[in-house]
Amino acid sequence: MSQATTAFVEQHRERLLNELKDFIRIPSVSTLPEHQGDVVRCAQFVADALTKAGLEHVEIIPTAGHPLVYADWLHAPGQPTVLCYGHYDVQPPDPLELWVTPPFEPTERDGNLYARGAVDDKGQMYMHIKAIEALFAVHGKLPVNVKFLIEGEEEIGGKSIAKYVPENQAKLKADVALVSDTALYAEGMPTLCIGLRGLIYMEVEAKGPARDLHSGLYGGAAPNAVFGLVELLSKLKDADGVIQVPGLYDDVTPPAEAELASWKQLPFSASEMLSKEVGSTALTGEPGFSVFERTWARPTLEVHGIAGGFTGAGAKTVIPATATAKVSIRLVPHQDPEKIVAAFKAAVAAATPRGITTQVNVLSASPGLMVNPDHPAIRVAAEAFETMMGRPTVFTRSGGSIPIVGDFNQHLGIPTILMGLGFPDDGLHSPNEKFCIANYYLGIQIVALFLEQYGKGPS
Amino acid sequence: MSQATTAFVEQHRERLLNELKDFIRIPSVSTLPEHQGDVVRCAQFVADALTKAGLEHVEIIPTAGHPLVYADWLHAPGQPTVLCYGHYDVQPPDPLELWVTPPFEPTERDGNLYARGAVDDKGQMYMHIKAIEALFAVHGKLPVNVKFLIEGEEEIGGKSIAKYVPENQAKLKADVALVSDTALYAEGMPTLCIGLRGLIYMEVEAKGPARDLHSGLYGGAAPNAVFGLVELLSKLKDADGVIQVPGLYDDVTPPAEAELASWKQLPFSASEMLSKEVGSTALTGEPGFSVFERTWARPTLEVHGIAGGFTGAGAKTVIPATATAKVSIRLVPHQDPEKIVAAFKAAVAAATPRGITTQVNVLSASPGLMVNPDHPAIRVAAEAFETMMGRPTVFTRSGGSIPIVGDFNQHLGIPTILMGLGFPDDGLHSPNEKFCIANYYLGIQIVALFLEQYGKGPS
Repeated sequence: MSQATTAFVEQHRERLLNELKDFIRIPSVSTLPEHQGDVVRCAQFVADALTKAGLEHVEIIPTAGHPLVYADWLHAPGQPTVLCYGHYDVQPPDPLELWVTPPFEPTERDGNLYARGAVDDKGQMYMHIKAIEALFAVHGKLPVNVKFLIEGEEEIGGKSIAKYVPENQAKLKADVALVSDTALYAEGMPTLCIGLRGLIYMEVEAKGPARDLHSGLYGGAAPNAVFGLVELLSKLKDADGVIQVPGLYDDVTPPAEAELASWKQLPFSASEMLSKEVGSTALTGEPGFSVFERTWARPTLEVHGIAGGFTGAGAKTVIPATATAKVSIRLVPHQDPEKIVAAFKAAVAAATPRGITTQVNVLSASPGLMVNPDHPAIRVAAEAFETMMGRPTVFTRSGGSIPIVGDFNQHLGIPTILMGLGFPDDGLHSPNEKFCIANYYLGIQIVALFLEQYGKGPS
Repeated sequence: MSQATTAFVEQHRERLLNELKDFIRIPSVSTLPEHQGDVVRCAQFVADALTKAGLEHVEIIPTAGHPLVYADWLHAPGQPTVLCYGHYDVQPPDPLELWVTPPFEPTERDGNLYARGAVDDKGQMYMHIKAIEALFAVHGKLPVNVKFLIEGEEEIGGKSIAKYVPENQAKLKADVALVSDTALYAEGMPTLCIGLRGLIYMEVEAKGPARDLHSGLYGGAAPNAVFGLVELLSKLKDADGVIQVPGLYDDVTPPAEAELASWKQLPFSASEMLSKEVGSTALTGEPGFSVFERTWARPTLEVHGIAGGFTGAGAKTVIPATATAKVSIRLVPHQDPEKIVAAFKAAVAAATPRGITTQVNVLSASPGLMVNPDHPAIRVAAEAFETMMGRPTVFTRSGGSIPIVGDFNQHLGIPTILMGLGFPDDGLHSPNEKFCIANYYLGIQIVALFLEQYGKGPS
């Protein structure tokens, strides 16, 4: 049967790509108020695409933030139900000057589609919709029951969907969730991600003098908010990357020996990662841990941005009154976000220098988690992947965070298949984000095959 | 004779203030390219004012940066020559939202004139011009020879005047320079400033990854430019404010016992400074030194601004590729700027974390200096101050920097009278900068009296 959907994809290549380009052209940057209208337009685009694909009960659901989009098709009695999730919002494109072509004008180069949102997550989410369309075209019906729930706040913490899921457990009831928002471990290597880090995102604000002061007249006697914030932040992590927040590592459990052993089989070169992906003079991180452990199985603390005082061209000799940093902590399974937030706030208070007052604002907090690779749906997904790509599926983790996976686990009691078709160097959240066009077509076929096979039960 | 110029000021109060307001309304922000036209317009305003006051050879001198304005009157043979210096450029007004009234719309409140540049230095520089006008009005001539040299780059390092002075030693030949860009120690207390700190202003740039990276995928393995800069800066100064740059304190000499003793006679309350001027939870600085020592006689290191990564609204989970800080070191007499720059660069290199590369750009560097309070012109100035204010003149230092004073000393071989009429809480470089209007009128009279008395020789 897979050959029929493959033929469908072959036959409609140009249209499938053009539709994706139209989707990507909408600059649905969820964090920037000036893109509010684009976000709404993008939700409508998704709803229309779901309707055209053949789904029913298509609904744009208003929220306190950006709208959710729901749709379903429930005419396969006795068959399992798959909940397809994705997000139509994207990260801001800045710094704009580093893009080779405009971020919201999807451009083909070397077999890739370059644009903000190409792989994260518009291209991958659209694979699901197009797989449904292919199945309807080939079979006139779907092999399983399907529900779609698409959000517009994934890049800003996903507050609305986190509220919606527990309030709509019956409506969203399913056997498994399907998410395509991760990457293949390497080109040609079918990969299912079974572990994710959680994320606590915070702002730390420091205040010193009541107003900016002349650094000549007051320098030596007045506290400096920028330097106070610098002092404070420097105490939260040591030079090796070990987080200096008391209690932070208490609930961190190391991966099982078998999992660690499987990671050692994965092709990996630290020097290639350094030169091709990171591009700095050295990799960094906790001594005694491999890069896989440091990025997949260890908590990290990062400063995403900092601002304070005079930052224009030239010179201004002020002692700044205020400064702010955006800080996150990535969590591994078993770490409780609330406990970690409390520990972080205590550490900030303890590290706040004399003359400075600080405040921590929590923007979002979600736990890390693991899924069981022996679940029937995961096994079918692994087989579909293997069939289409001709190699055994590998199981990895990701250092990134998909909070909804935790919500599906907690409130719907279902595991999530993380079936990603990205590449590790796709530049998520960076300038020149891309998606391999061949993977887009392949993903549509794999999702279609998975749904067909899942309708039949595991082999 | 002072009564005649006093009468002149009384008679023209309204016009004298309105003219100053017109001067202040020109937003001559030297550091911001978008104000280039305003800076040029402001130079023309100064030239016109010098002409109207009765000075000759008025000249707008183009430079590589902003224009200088020169004028003179040299018809008092046998009499000394006074070189009046001031600057017509101002600091940027941001943060704009903290101004009670617009920064470039001078507004009278409670006997003060509120505006950017009111006291630093437009109001004070204009006192000199109006004193000349008063002397011509009253005497038909000046009691001494006078030269004016006014610059438009004081707030951005004064490169053009620093080049002009050594190249024009004959033209600028004088016996003493007169500068009004400092403050009275307290209301009603005539004050001459005899010491200034120098200033080295630098930018420190840090680079980590070649591009912004996803903090989930790379967090734990990739260096973070913002955190690298934070780590580095935190190592340059300890929590007490002691600078951790090897060699920095080598040439620092303590003030003489007599000077330290005189400072103890000045009215001062650290708690009032904290509550009325600084407004933080505590004063800070080196243990074992008084506030006067810390702000007047000790070098300091400040971070004036910092920027890097994502600083917009909401959340963006990047590991930033670059970060920049504006950093200055204030110098005391005997410290060599070049030696300190070299020591700072070495300290930055030594403190640069693994995976990060740094660069230091020096924007300006000038030494600290002292003037001799027994110089005849200083004595006449102290007497004029005392006569007009009815109290003995006190000698103080300032923690600020007026690089031109060092240039006059080095290239023209003359001392500078720092005759400031500001108040310590005038908010230089801050929102709601002000100048006490009574001090403006008083300053015109004191400058006129000083020139009259200097023409007669010390009493």
